[in-house]
Amino acid sequence: MQTLNVDLGERSYPIHIGQNLLAQPLLAPFIKGRQVMVVSNETVAPLYLDKLMSQLSGFQVDMIILPDGEAFKNLDHVNRIFDALLEKRHNRTTTLIALGGGVVGDMTGFAAACYQRGVAFIQVPTTLLSQVDSSVGGKTGVNHPLGKNMIGAFHQPQVVLADTDVLATLPERELSAGLAEVIKYGLIHDAEFLAWLEENMSALRRRDAGALSQAIYRSCEIKAEMVALDERESGVRALLNLGHTFGHAIETDQGYGQWLHGEAVGAGTMMAADLSARLGWLTQADLDRVRKILQAAGLPVQPPASMSSERFVELMAVDKKVIDGSLRLVLLQQLGKAVVTSDFPAERLTETLTAGECLGQL
Amino acid sequence: MQTLNVDLGERSYPIHIGQNLLAQPLLAPFIKGRQVMVVSNETVAPLYLDKLMSQLSGFQVDMIILPDGEAFKNLDHVNRIFDALLEKRHNRTTTLIALGGGVVGDMTGFAAACYQRGVAFIQVPTTLLSQVDSSVGGKTGVNHPLGKNMIGAFHQPQVVLADTDVLATLPERELSAGLAEVIKYGLIHDAEFLAWLEENMSALRRRDAGALSQAIYRSCEIKAEMVALDERESGVRALLNLGHTFGHAIETDQGYGQWLHGEAVGAGTMMAADLSARLGWLTQADLDRVRKILQAAGLPVQPPASMSSERFVELMAVDKKVIDGSLRLVLLQQLGKAVVTSDFPAERLTETLTAGECLGQL
Repeated sequence: MQTLNVDLGERSYPIHIGQNLLAQPLLAPFIKGRQVMVVSNETVAPLYLDKLMSQLSGFQVDMIILPDGEAFKNLDHVNRIFDALLEKRHNRTTTLIALGGGVVGDMTGFAAACYQRGVAFIQVPTTLLSQVDSSVGGKTGVNHPLGKNMIGAFHQPQVVLADTDVLATLPERELSAGLAEVIKYGLIHDAEFLAWLEENMSALRRRDAGALSQAIYRSCEIKAEMVALDERESGVRALLNLGHTFGHAIETDQGYGQWLHGEAVGAGTMMAADLSARLGWLTQADLDRVRKILQAAGLPVQPPASMSSERFVELMAVDKKVIDGSLRLVLLQQLGKAVVTSDFPAERLTETLTAGECLGQL
Repeated sequence: MQTLNVDLGERSYPIHIGQNLLAQPLLAPFIKGRQVMVVSNETVAPLYLDKLMSQLSGFQVDMIILPDGEAFKNLDHVNRIFDALLEKRHNRTTTLIALGGGVVGDMTGFAAACYQRGVAFIQVPTTLLSQVDSSVGGKTGVNHPLGKNMIGAFHQPQVVLADTDVLATLPERELSAGLAEVIKYGLIHDAEFLAWLEENMSALRRRDAGALSQAIYRSCEIKAEMVALDERESGVRALLNLGHTFGHAIETDQGYGQWLHGEAVGAGTMMAADLSARLGWLTQADLDRVRKILQAAGLPVQPPASMSSERFVELMAVDKKVIDGSLRLVLLQQLGKAVVTSDFPAERLTETLTAGECLGQL
């Protein structure tokens, strides 16, 4: 087991990463009161709930099992968590434990942020995406019919358990979706890690425990470094959104849950790389590397053919990254170095949005 | 105009108190972006919205008018604020302005805390209760069918305008409800202020502007002092809940909105004083002063006759002040000095809960 400390002053917390963590007594030291509410979903609970429960004896443990999927990440389902907490009379010393992927984690974290104006929570992410993304940063929240993640709070967990064993049951598409974020960390911040990923992509896809641990550790480390510099996302942290503004537009257009978040980020990353190249920052060889590693990870490298340039612009206009009317995008100055900018000619963006089959070809 | 600075480090903000503040250009310096969403209700908007709008020229001003009353302080109505923000494409630099009483303030503040994980908000409280209570402390939130204020966040405003002129249209009952909180500040923290209130109660009830300003200023000052010591309510701030655990039980039993919050706090304060006397901390003369000033303010000094001791215990058990099963109450060690304690014989509490007509008589 490796442990990474996320350094946020009095809100610091550890991430434990490794094999067979679920049944080890790692959580009890972080549970302050006597009450625990486990939040999971219909897919994950049958697989891993019993194992988790084995380390929670001695507490009042209640649970709520939500339906599985991004389509249920909304205020109504957070309200069901509140219902359960109040029916079981959980007080402000309770601890919420999220056992599941990003959707469960985001909703549980948001419920914890708001229940009695803030209670403790613990993350046990069961997808690669949530292990490398929601483990760090404290972002919680839900979707609104008019925009993704529009309602939420910053709320840090007490501890995170990233158990690589649970990835054994993860569907192929979801593993790929997680790899989209892993690749992102290399692209925005660490060319050496990007090269390591190019070499180890097949080991990662066959779920080699050692390779997974290493990829998770370095991904969380990069994110933690950026979050520590910028907990409330006013500066450097925005770089973590590479591919996300395009990706959110794809998810919204297609309806939440049709494209996985990581798949949309994969295509969005290719779009960001394409625009970066049109601005003269990336070479054709760079673009080819980006396409190749996304494809090796099993990710789409183009947006849906049905999405027009106008549709993208319309949807990106409500993205949180719009400040006073100008669209800010994360682009690549080189492989391993990203920048946030609104200083690009609108025609270059239009070229990227209309490139279709030619996306990634200068 | 007097200005009180609430000292919370980088979250510090001013409260302006006085006559005719609504139409003065006091808000613009605190609006960072170009977008403003005014949230008000059907009672207050026709009276004061135009006046407020006169100081917002030059901004994109949108508004949402909610139904009036505690019964609407729930997630559904907060969601209507989110709908309006997203329909009008407000970004994360937007500022929400709450024009109304505590319900509007609590919902608007909570919406601001959660919209895009936190945007700015401004309070323009239009009831005495909200001027002396929600102006300070950053508590925001909504009710749940199983408990009052169970869902919320701590979120500080940029500035508060407490205009005494708007109290001219406040119904008599609501003025009294606000005075319950004013009296509370004297009881828990300042015997001299309590004596001042005894002398000035008739001036306050005939809405003398000078007396009101002074009462609001000193109330906010006492609350600000306590909140500055304890922003997240782990210690001294709990003293502000004098009468509230009993009061919340009354409100829940009667259905939100039947008893005004301040009326329930009035009866709850009498119950807390009664229990304090049974513990030997207050004299019969003290109890008589408490009853007399509550009555002079036009407040009830007994709970509803229909509420049994068992019903109180049941409802108080879900109150946020319960920690690990033991009920903690704010009681009076003497007039002007309060304490939080769970160290009292259950029989004394039962005596208070069953006192009926004899409440406040040793």
